[in-house]
Order: sequence, then C-alpha cells, then structure tokens
Amino acid sequence: YLKLRSLQRKSYTHYFYEATVGAGLPIISTLRGLLETGDHILRIEGIFSGTLSYLFNSFVGTRSFSEVVAEAKEAGYTEPDPRDDLSGTDVARKVIILARESGLKLELSDLPVRSLVPEPLKACASAEEFMKQLPQFDEELAKQRQEAEDAGEVLRYVGVVDAINKEGRVELRRYKKDHPFAQLSGSDNIIAFTTKRYKEQPLIVRGPGAGAQVTAGGIFSDILRLASYLGAPS
Amino acid sequence: YLKLRSLQRKSYTHYFYEATVGAGLPIISTLRGLLETGDHILRIEGIFSGTLSYLFNSFVGTRSFSEVVAEAKEAGYTEPDPRDDLSGTDVARKVIILARESGLKLELSDLPVRSLVPEPLKACASAEEFMKQLPQFDEELAKQRQEAEDAGEVLRYVGVVDAINKEGRVELRRYKKDHPFAQLSGSDNIIAFTTKRYKEQPLIVRGPGAGAQVTAGGIFSDILRLASYLGAPS
Repeated sequence: YLKLRSLQRKSYTHYFYEATVGAGLPIISTLRGLLETGDHILRIEGIFSGTLSYLFNSFVGTRSFSEVVAEAKEAGYTEPDPRDDLSGTDVARKVIILARESGLKLELSDLPVRSLVPEPLKACASAEEFMKQLPQFDEELAKQRQEAEDAGEVLRYVGVVDAINKEGRVELRRYKKDHPFAQLSGSDNIIAFTTKRYKEQPLIVRGPGAGAQVTAGGIFSDILRLASYLGAPS
Repeated sequence: YLKLRSLQRKSYTHYFYEATVGAGLPIISTLRGLLETGDHILRIEGIFSGTLSYLFNSFVGTRSFSEVVAEAKEAGYTEPDPRDDLSGTDVARKVIILARESGLKLELSDLPVRSLVPEPLKACASAEEFMKQLPQFDEELAKQRQEAEDAGEVLRYVGVVDAINKEGRVELRRYKKDHPFAQLSGSDNIIAFTTKRYKEQPLIVRGPGAGAQVTAGGIFSDILRLASYLGAPS
C-alpha cells in the first residue's frame, strides 16, 4: 500500500477514495485537510456501520439483542446473513483506511476486533440457523447494557484509531448519555476527530453513511475534484 | 456579488472562502460538494456563533441571561462590547454566505434578525453601561426558557437558510432535548444540511468554529486546494 502511494505521488497522478468511509460524508477530505495543513491526529473514533448504529440505537428498554437483529434483518437493514455485519470486519476495514491516511502502518490482521457473533455460531451453515440460535446468547449483551445503564451510559459499537499509541481497534464501548455518540438516531454514522487543534472539543461529522445516492455523491465529488486538479474552472 | 462570481468563473481564476463560516470546519467545501454533484439544498440550519452557542448552552437552571453574559464577558468569550455578539449581525453574515452559495439572491437587509440587545439599550454609550442595565431585561428570556423547558425543549440561537421559500433568518428557536442542537457543549458550532439526498437525517458538522489555529487551518487548506487546482501533486 505504501509503495503504491509513493509511486502515485512520484508520478503526479491522483488517488481519491472519499466514499470508502461514510459514503458521501466528508470524512477522508476532512482528515486530509487537517493533515496537510499541519494538524496532528490524536484519535479518530466513530460509528462507521449504519447497521450496527441502528442495532445499538434500538437496543433499549426491555428488548433483547436478538430481537433487534431480527427486526433489522426483516427491514432489510442488515446483510442477508447478519453475521457479515456483526463480525465487525466492515468496521475494521474503515479503521484501517483512516489509520493509514493518518500515517500509521497497520494491517487488518493487527486489529483487535470485537465480534458480536457468538463463537459457537460462527460455524452455522445458514443465516436462518444463526438467527434461530442467536437468542441463546442474549444474556451477555443484556448484562453489559444493564451495567452501562446503571452508570448512566449506553453501549456503542465503535472503531478507534489511536494515533498516540499507533494502534486501532473495533470494540463495544460505553458512553455517557450526553456524549454525541449516545444521541444517535436511525442508522447514522458519526466520526469524531480529536487533534492537536481540535483537542478540547473534537471535530464531528454525522449523517447517513450508506445508500446508493449518497455514495454516488461521494464518488462524483472525487471525480469533480480530479477535474479541478487537472485544470477545470472552479 | 453575482457579477464578481460570473467574472471569476469566466476568467478561470479561483475563489475560496472556507474559513468565513465555522473557521476550519468543512462547511463551504461540503456545501459546494453537495451542489456540484447535483444535490438540492432544502434547508441549512446552524449555530454559527461560538459566543451565542456558549451563552445558550450555559443558560440553564436558575441563572439569569445577564448573569451568563457577564460571566462570558469576564472569561473573554464575548467581544469587548457584548452587543456586537448579541445583535446577531455576525450570524446574519454567515447565513448570507451560505444562502448565496446555495443560489439564493439575498442581501443582509433582506434577513429578519432577532437581536438580543433590548431596544432601549442599543443607544447605551458604553459596554459597561449596557452590562449594568441588561439585568432589567432578563424577564422576557427567562419566560421563553421556562416555556421551552415546560415542553421538554431548550432555546438555541440559530441561523437558517430556507432554500424552499428562498429566504433566510436569524432567530431564537426551541429544540427537543434529543435534537443534536440541544446537546451542544462549550462554544461549538453545529451546522445541519437537509438536502434531497440527506432528507430524513441531515448531514451534520460540529466542532469549534473560532480561534486562531483552526481558522488558519481553514485558510491554509484553501491555499493548498488552490495549489492542487494549479497542478501541484496530491
């Protein structure tokens, strides 16, 4: 990857990939802007999966986790096999993209990823079988939610780039109820950049981070940027 | 203004002004990106003044508005004469910038602006005199806050570009306590773009919108963009 980027720069070609994180949300361009102007990233923390955002925003009251997953699957918010979302791989990929952009040398295999697929269910032959067995494992997450609630907190499934310790991870974290991550609704993504400049209060971008229209917008925006770099009027 | 922009485009020169709204926050670039890729702005709504953000985030409990203003003045969060912040002119300027960028033909004189400077105090000779007299006018805002509170809402001082009705305004609005604007802290700016693409859930940018470092970052970012447009490697 680093070789590719170094060749790209030497050959005066361009390389854009805004829509790889948060679809049309201005994530990569914001990060590049900060870095190019001399800011230093301390931490990037975000809810990068619309599906997992929705699941934890809805995991409230007396509902069990498997119930929320079933409902989301029904509504088409998850992949046909919800294990594709619950494994955390998609979030891990986004953490790697942001970590590399921030200058860290990380590979997918370096990341500790909290999978929400119970170990015994990884081998289930079908999504149906998985959904049927999932309720048996509700207890652990219910317990974690209760512990969080007792402390005035909520659970959120986040990706973290820790630029100080040069590491990344995907985990289930607890946030105070007045934290911006605690107040999400729907399937919004949210990304917080804590930098030398934005240290006391992070720079936050929030909004729908998936869907055909907004993803196309992100890609189109890159193409127009390319056109401008190649001399188109602004 | 329109003539200037048309000349600029015809002459293949560039015109950037990211830091005019929200300092280093990606506001103008985000808006331009949406428009250039064919999205349609329906509404832009935001808290554009760090000072007024701080004042209303702190206007809670049993505190009077004049007390909060005095404290903010003491801490250096307001202009030497707080009337410069409370008049709303600064917010109105930002609404005009965003409205014009969105294609509306608006002038500052077209905007209804809610001034928080009581009419009789506009003529006060000095900031000291103004601060001394301000407590007499606490009652009205206290009443508005109480009404909002009784409805589970908070007061926020916002600028609005209403692209559907082709108008803008600066006003004191009430927001439900789970609205992103209600949960601000410190002197953060927050801007929500509701567009054809981001209709159900807006695209939101939040963070410190003033200060030497972040403003310089916004300007520097424009300069680098200019360099790229003129052929620098990316």
